[in-house]
Amino acid sequence: MVINNVGVTFPKGFLASGIACGLKNTAKKDLALIYSKNPATAAAVFTKNSVWAAPLTVSFNHLKNKTIQAIIINSGNANCFTGKAGVSDALVMCKMVASNLGIKENDVLVASTGIIGKRLAIDKVRNGIPDLIENLSSLDEAGKNAAKAILTTDTFIKQRAYKINFGKKSVAIGAMAKGSGMIAPNMATMLAFITTDAAIDKKILEKILNQAIDRSFNCISVDGCMSTNDFVSILANGVSGYKIQSKNDIKKFSTALNEICLELSKDIIKDGEGRTKFITIEINGLHSFEQAKKAGLAIANSMLFKCACFGNNPNWGRIAAAIGAADLKVKEGDFKINMSFKGKDEVLVKVNFKQGKAKAIIYSTDLTPKYIAINAAYN
Amino acid sequence: MVINNVGVTFPKGFLASGIACGLKNTAKKDLALIYSKNPATAAAVFTKNSVWAAPLTVSFNHLKNKTIQAIIINSGNANCFTGKAGVSDALVMCKMVASNLGIKENDVLVASTGIIGKRLAIDKVRNGIPDLIENLSSLDEAGKNAAKAILTTDTFIKQRAYKINFGKKSVAIGAMAKGSGMIAPNMATMLAFITTDAAIDKKILEKILNQAIDRSFNCISVDGCMSTNDFVSILANGVSGYKIQSKNDIKKFSTALNEICLELSKDIIKDGEGRTKFITIEINGLHSFEQAKKAGLAIANSMLFKCACFGNNPNWGRIAAAIGAADLKVKEGDFKINMSFKGKDEVLVKVNFKQGKAKAIIYSTDLTPKYIAINAAYN
Repeated sequence: MVINNVGVTFPKGFLASGIACGLKNTAKKDLALIYSKNPATAAAVFTKNSVWAAPLTVSFNHLKNKTIQAIIINSGNANCFTGKAGVSDALVMCKMVASNLGIKENDVLVASTGIIGKRLAIDKVRNGIPDLIENLSSLDEAGKNAAKAILTTDTFIKQRAYKINFGKKSVAIGAMAKGSGMIAPNMATMLAFITTDAAIDKKILEKILNQAIDRSFNCISVDGCMSTNDFVSILANGVSGYKIQSKNDIKKFSTALNEICLELSKDIIKDGEGRTKFITIEINGLHSFEQAKKAGLAIANSMLFKCACFGNNPNWGRIAAAIGAADLKVKEGDFKINMSFKGKDEVLVKVNFKQGKAKAIIYSTDLTPKYIAINAAYN
Repeated sequence: MVINNVGVTFPKGFLASGIACGLKNTAKKDLALIYSKNPATAAAVFTKNSVWAAPLTVSFNHLKNKTIQAIIINSGNANCFTGKAGVSDALVMCKMVASNLGIKENDVLVASTGIIGKRLAIDKVRNGIPDLIENLSSLDEAGKNAAKAILTTDTFIKQRAYKINFGKKSVAIGAMAKGSGMIAPNMATMLAFITTDAAIDKKILEKILNQAIDRSFNCISVDGCMSTNDFVSILANGVSGYKIQSKNDIKKFSTALNEICLELSKDIIKDGEGRTKFITIEINGLHSFEQAKKAGLAIANSMLFKCACFGNNPNWGRIAAAIGAADLKVKEGDFKINMSFKGKDEVLVKVNFKQGKAKAIIYSTDLTPKYIAINAAYN
């Protein structure tokens, strides 16, 4: 059951907060915290970009830990390409959160998003943390504040929540995400933080998180640019008192998790920088999901295709060219293309192959003068 | 020695013409012909896009022939994704040229550029061919007409010529090219036709053409979109009476050919759709040229990097992100980035690795509202 207008604080035992510590040089929120009353089982997936931002290195190490109890996130600065100082800054963030909350430093994850290559104004973060912790709350409003504080060029907050009944018991999942540019699969500068009060073993959690990501965050693209800071995590604190372990329960929970990830992915596309179109690309009839995804993303990332969508121009020849360039070894007679415009803001592309039964659905945006204006100036 | 303002008709024994047959629905030229008085040795390289336009299939077959004597090229329609009718149309073009010139059908190559997926108005071409042949001439003006007739969104003609002395003898190379959008390495919708009055064996010709392309047409990118119609060919008719066969002669000829290809490549970038910047990306210190090229193209094709260039915004963090996404397995400490703006229209990027001695230079364009305007409307 979908629950509206709530996010990471919806599951029991989770608190959150979001404040402005000055990283954005405006009154806009830029520092967020998620805190679980209990140490939680955790799983996370990071960018496939080989250049990792400092917080990813730190979080990767902390995830070797059995449990995680807090996540601190800043926007406005990616803390990437910042050398040893960057790693030290990310560690400082974990340490300060830990000492102020009375938990272990290794139980804290850290994530960042914003400009690459500039040292983080760590003093501003340091000064903000006490306030951040004071504002922790399980209220809907607190979750919303956290969801606001992780945004960069995003124009709206992205959160989702779900309640799942297992007989007389129930568990909850909540989530928040950010992303609107530098969005390519594997993943995008996209951050997503998922919480649940279910108890789940770490291995199962890792498996279902990866599955969910593969068909959601990895199936969207705004600009084909893969970020150095992508970070999706899930914390399962068990406060509901219900443990997800039977095959059926895992399936039920997974279905909800998939839906949340897909919904957040669509939100990211809806908020795609400067977009005027929401593009759905459906690829059918290939041998594997991976192949179908590759074909779909090749179309989604074609600048010429994106321009055609912007211009309401059914130039499907560019779709054929993009598929041919995708290293799938397919020829002209191997596929059929359908491209249609629905209303003012939807484009639907269907490409049907006859080689197998696998399909993939990719979501994307058009390329517009506004995208250029946003990214010509952003720094 | 560079010879200015001449192209394919500069080498002895080559004639050309260019006319308007109506494919563009304007008075603009859209049909070109190159004709060699003697059957010429030929080599050609086609797109690596797996979807091939019909003329490529036909030309590929005709190249199995020992010699080639004419090339007919149309702009305004790519004759791609046009099924059996498209192949038949391409064959008709060869046949008509052959019968009107009194040569073998198999001695004619055919190339097309323009919109994908629309049947060619073959009757217009058919009606134009007698006129096209009547206009054949070895004058500079005739070469220029041919160079005009192969353009699509290009804003200027692209031709080059070179004279090389071998003792008391000399040979000439001439060339024309088109390209301004759908330009990605391997190659781009880029057509280039090179002529020489040297005699050269087919195997050597193939080898030196491939080498020249690898460091010129394969090192440029406007939009990362790989065309279905790319076609580069060289015809060597031997009319100069000089045969290129010694190691030294091959080297000398190759050097000139490389320079011509590189110059034409730079012309294509200068004419890049809507560009305001000419971007040079120099990658140093990797293990192989291929790796360096991969890194350079990853930067060149990053939409975010292109937007930064447009905005005179030295956001080099996006260069780091693009390199990290390029599947080179390099980390933050492995490279240094320098990005500078020269005058109003040049951007120079240098990335230095410490892994090896290989380097590559990539040329590219920025992403501008004008690029979008051109491609939102083009069909």
